[in-house]
Amino acid sequence: MKHILKPIASLVIVLVTFTSCNNTKKSGSNSGALSSNVAEKVFVAPGEHDEFYAFISGGYSGNLTVYGLPSGRMFKEIPVFSQFPTSGYGYSEETKPMLNTSHGFIPWGDSHHPDISQTNGEIDGRFIFINENNTPRIAKIDLQSFETTEIIEVPNSAGNHSSSFVTENTEYVVAGTRFSVPIPQRDMPIKDYKGNFQGALSFISVAPETGDMDIKFQVLMPGFNYDLSHPGRGKSHGWFFFTTYNTEEANTLLEVNASQNDKDFIAAVNWKKIEEYVNNGGGKMMPAEYAHNVYDEHTHTATSTIKKEVRVVNPTDVPGAVFFLPTPKSPHGCDVDPTGEYIVGNGKLSANLTVHSFTKMLDAIENEKFDGEAYGIPILNFEDVLAGTVEQPGLGPLHTEFDDQGNAYTTFFISSEVVKWKVGTWEVIDRKPTYYSVGHLTIPGGNSRKPQGKYMFAMNKITKDRYLPTGPEMEHSAQLYDISGDKMELLLDFPTHGEPHYAAAMRADLIKERSRKIYNLDENNHPYAAKSDAETKVVRDGNEVHIYMTTIRSHFSPDNIEGIKVGDKVFFHVTNLEQDFDVPHGFAVLGQNTSELLIMPGQTKTSVWEPTKVGVWPFYCTDFCSALHQEMQGYIRVSPKNADTPIKWSMGEDIE
Amino acid sequence: MKHILKPIASLVIVLVTFTSCNNTKKSGSNSGALSSNVAEKVFVAPGEHDEFYAFISGGYSGNLTVYGLPSGRMFKEIPVFSQFPTSGYGYSEETKPMLNTSHGFIPWGDSHHPDISQTNGEIDGRFIFINENNTPRIAKIDLQSFETTEIIEVPNSAGNHSSSFVTENTEYVVAGTRFSVPIPQRDMPIKDYKGNFQGALSFISVAPETGDMDIKFQVLMPGFNYDLSHPGRGKSHGWFFFTTYNTEEANTLLEVNASQNDKDFIAAVNWKKIEEYVNNGGGKMMPAEYAHNVYDEHTHTATSTIKKEVRVVNPTDVPGAVFFLPTPKSPHGCDVDPTGEYIVGNGKLSANLTVHSFTKMLDAIENEKFDGEAYGIPILNFEDVLAGTVEQPGLGPLHTEFDDQGNAYTTFFISSEVVKWKVGTWEVIDRKPTYYSVGHLTIPGGNSRKPQGKYMFAMNKITKDRYLPTGPEMEHSAQLYDISGDKMELLLDFPTHGEPHYAAAMRADLIKERSRKIYNLDENNHPYAAKSDAETKVVRDGNEVHIYMTTIRSHFSPDNIEGIKVGDKVFFHVTNLEQDFDVPHGFAVLGQNTSELLIMPGQTKTSVWEPTKVGVWPFYCTDFCSALHQEMQGYIRVSPKNADTPIKWSMGEDIE
Repeated sequence: MKHILKPIASLVIVLVTFTSCNNTKKSGSNSGALSSNVAEKVFVAPGEHDEFYAFISGGYSGNLTVYGLPSGRMFKEIPVFSQFPTSGYGYSEETKPMLNTSHGFIPWGDSHHPDISQTNGEIDGRFIFINENNTPRIAKIDLQSFETTEIIEVPNSAGNHSSSFVTENTEYVVAGTRFSVPIPQRDMPIKDYKGNFQGALSFISVAPETGDMDIKFQVLMPGFNYDLSHPGRGKSHGWFFFTTYNTEEANTLLEVNASQNDKDFIAAVNWKKIEEYVNNGGGKMMPAEYAHNVYDEHTHTATSTIKKEVRVVNPTDVPGAVFFLPTPKSPHGCDVDPTGEYIVGNGKLSANLTVHSFTKMLDAIENEKFDGEAYGIPILNFEDVLAGTVEQPGLGPLHTEFDDQGNAYTTFFISSEVVKWKVGTWEVIDRKPTYYSVGHLTIPGGNSRKPQGKYMFAMNKITKDRYLPTGPEMEHSAQLYDISGDKMELLLDFPTHGEPHYAAAMRADLIKERSRKIYNLDENNHPYAAKSDAETKVVRDGNEVHIYMTTIRSHFSPDNIEGIKVGDKVFFHVTNLEQDFDVPHGFAVLGQNTSELLIMPGQTKTSVWEPTKVGVWPFYCTDFCSALHQEMQGYIRVSPKNADTPIKWSMGEDIE
Repeated sequence: MKHILKPIASLVIVLVTFTSCNNTKKSGSNSGALSSNVAEKVFVAPGEHDEFYAFISGGYSGNLTVYGLPSGRMFKEIPVFSQFPTSGYGYSEETKPMLNTSHGFIPWGDSHHPDISQTNGEIDGRFIFINENNTPRIAKIDLQSFETTEIIEVPNSAGNHSSSFVTENTEYVVAGTRFSVPIPQRDMPIKDYKGNFQGALSFISVAPETGDMDIKFQVLMPGFNYDLSHPGRGKSHGWFFFTTYNTEEANTLLEVNASQNDKDFIAAVNWKKIEEYVNNGGGKMMPAEYAHNVYDEHTHTATSTIKKEVRVVNPTDVPGAVFFLPTPKSPHGCDVDPTGEYIVGNGKLSANLTVHSFTKMLDAIENEKFDGEAYGIPILNFEDVLAGTVEQPGLGPLHTEFDDQGNAYTTFFISSEVVKWKVGTWEVIDRKPTYYSVGHLTIPGGNSRKPQGKYMFAMNKITKDRYLPTGPEMEHSAQLYDISGDKMELLLDFPTHGEPHYAAAMRADLIKERSRKIYNLDENNHPYAAKSDAETKVVRDGNEVHIYMTTIRSHFSPDNIEGIKVGDKVFFHVTNLEQDFDVPHGFAVLGQNTSELLIMPGQTKTSVWEPTKVGVWPFYCTDFCSALHQEMQGYIRVSPKNADTPIKWSMGEDIE
């Protein structure tokens, strides 16, 4: 059971160790001649607003975080794929279905790449999508409520990484597998991976009005690893591009065995052609189990449906739909410039940066200039599709974004820098160090036809001494640069929350104007809502007890409850009667084996309590809601299992 | 079942509604003549460090957040009372015992008042304590590792709010009940509250060397609500002070019924006297179930023990130990000045601010000048103990802190301001508005003999328009003020995470120098650790399978595993072999019904997987660890329940 380290491994280890730099830091603030000028650039005075929203993935937090730029302040953590004790997401009865999967309830996810919905290639601020890697899923967050409103599981997929990017009218949100697997899953030796495992690229349709998601089709590709992807736009709209690595199809020690080939591929997929094929009955339905979870803003409740089949397409059945573009070497980011002409392959083990030409690609396809095939998929000639090369830009290119002036910005993990270069001439214009080991970067509007420029931020993977220490575990660090001039200017270090892999950003206006402030109580269709004190009640149904409860500054109704018995399953259905902005109430009861509820104005949420101990137990409002918040409490009496204490409830007078 | 609203309620509602102010905000940054100067004051240039740590309670997040001042940047969220999917806290086998209670596993808590350990009345930066309100507990966080290392449940308590404050040599961390309950708990009518419910004040000893916590005794007080507390210091060291409200002993509609009395009390407790009484065998042991959870830094594992009894003391059995100081009106904060002479009662429904004199209190006690008693506890005369009154300072005083120049700073929730006044003359020196509805405030070193001054920050309960909107739910907002001059100067709005109730802050140096960077692999005593690739193995024991796995940049060992069957319970014991700072690895496997593991250098953590589906499933590193992070993956084969696939594992070569 020993392993073999081939020679390349030591080279790799040297490169990696090189990233562990560790500068000495001085304590204290405000040094440097230009610090005053820089300070002003990032300062947002009390009461004023940031200019941009940045939506930064939480990575292993499973969530999505919302920041303002240029201040770098975190305004919200939106729970998406993970339980969130703060609000009760994934604990309350209404939200537990959001985390259901074909593998049952999963309390955690690994969120990576948010992408904002688009109309005509411009980001429109309606929705933001984000992928879960580990148990493949795609989520949609409504940017009026900043709530996760839909999650769809992706079957036949594993390590859902080349996701979740949208086409230029949000026709599709695309999800590509990182790990290939047996399709369908079956009991087979791991060593038979090569030629037997497959990689699914999933095209999830998004309904234009409602945003409802559905898996339209999956393209079953060879058993490579599919790393990142981006849509074509403008002239290349209708195509989608995916980087691949491990074209060696190794199944063990990939750091060595998947780093053998000089070139891997970018897979170019003409999704319009496949869509047409599918619309004409192409592909086949195969059995597949996957969850589709939808949150209803009027019942304030999620439902989960397990779907039973999915449409799959063999790419060789659709001639002219899928091609491979050779790309050095184990490319990570797959980025398309605002015009749609250039496709950048960020070959993370390559000495330079390869840019493909969409026009040349079409030309080569038309002329059938192929350099062989892989599993029946034509491979184009590297030179035939090459637009240009950025020479010796840095070590370990990972990801490229674009501004509105024809410039590109690429992160280099190993040499720990961002490099600015000119699209078309491929000349390097500027380079700035990052602290340390940058992964991805973001420019507002970056993944669209109309980048908004002004700022760029880098998301760094190593933090070390950038902040006051917090023990062995440090938050990751982002760095904000002014990119309005010829040279990039470092403005600010700001810590992130979770592990930010990727981000999407945009001007604030579109979202700000449409933001929801409360839920209308009149439109609350929750089956257990009590819309006034008169509707409050306590109803026993066998050993289930349903408490229809209301909250308003500063009391619960009812606030004295009796007749509960050990062994009961008690449902607190709590309706927040407030109709003012920013007046949530919370609810918790002593000894409950779940989280609190945090209930927004007009909402109803439900918490379950299965008391095991006889006694009189308090509940209280967990959100400091008013000057008399501390008085917002109640008691619930739990009698023995065989007691005959009748169900009674009251507020403002004693139970008799 | 109707309720009766007495006349006072409408007055209260008017006051409360008055807080919902809503200013119009302009977009854009950097306006105002002095913004450049202010910007410089809060700007910490990239690569430089903040001057102060601020530890801000997460409130209903259940956690503790760590910020830097003056930048207002959040450096870490330390999981304490709630599951934290980000790191696997409360999900991994090693950390689940930390959330055990006498009510079973509880995934959530409501954390309120952090307090840093002290030596000779000065904060020493060794530990920070924080309380859980809902299911009463006290936690201790080690400020070398920034990890929660101990949690003790508090029996006979409910809404554990007047907690967790430490005496001046950290002899005790004190926890007072907010809600009174039947002691012991029993099945009784709620309306019989008055005279029958009691309020426990718990004194938890802290071992000088190790910091180990143990409940030394509980004082069983009358059935009031105990809101906040502070230790005496200097001359008053040996005493502890607790605000009370609901001395009316109302059990319903407290916003009205607990606002009747003109004065409630501050309870003064001579804990040294009670300690002596207890050391001489005083008090009695009573049956009580409560969990004591301890995390061992060498096994990287927590254990939970259920304790079975607790020592209780009847205050009337210890003459001279407990007294009531009449204090207007429903006081919230209970604050002691740095000299220990003055005790401030922040009467939240009072028109002014009452300050008691410790010297006068001792004098009145000595002369037995009592104004009656409550449940056998002597009540002192208000005028006899009054040091002075801050007249008409504002509406709704909540909490007072002190600087190092003899000034006090009090928050006013209803009039939404911080007021600075002179200790001794009681004159108001300055007032500044807060946005909006401030709860507590913090000055570094505030709860000690030696406040460190320079900054004060206010934690506001209403946010509304202070930041870009994020739907109905907004983060709360803190505001940072420069207090080095005569007048306070507002510098910065910064959002907080969760619901910050209270905070403790201190100069960075003491903590910074002692901060732990890695765990020494040689000192890892985890029973399932594999300390090198040679120690990795897979062991079947019935339907349990234990995988001893290692991680190092950039592979898992083993990374191919076979012989797992549906119905097995698979334990992944993952040891991170790295010994460099800031190189965690993560672990997750597709379809697992728990969170990832995030494993610091030198640590071992364990995750359970009970696969329900046949197939070949990938696992991968969830933390971007190196240039070849994407290659850090493996496969595990799951065969049918009745298969005879043998257990095998490998790395770098195929399983044969």
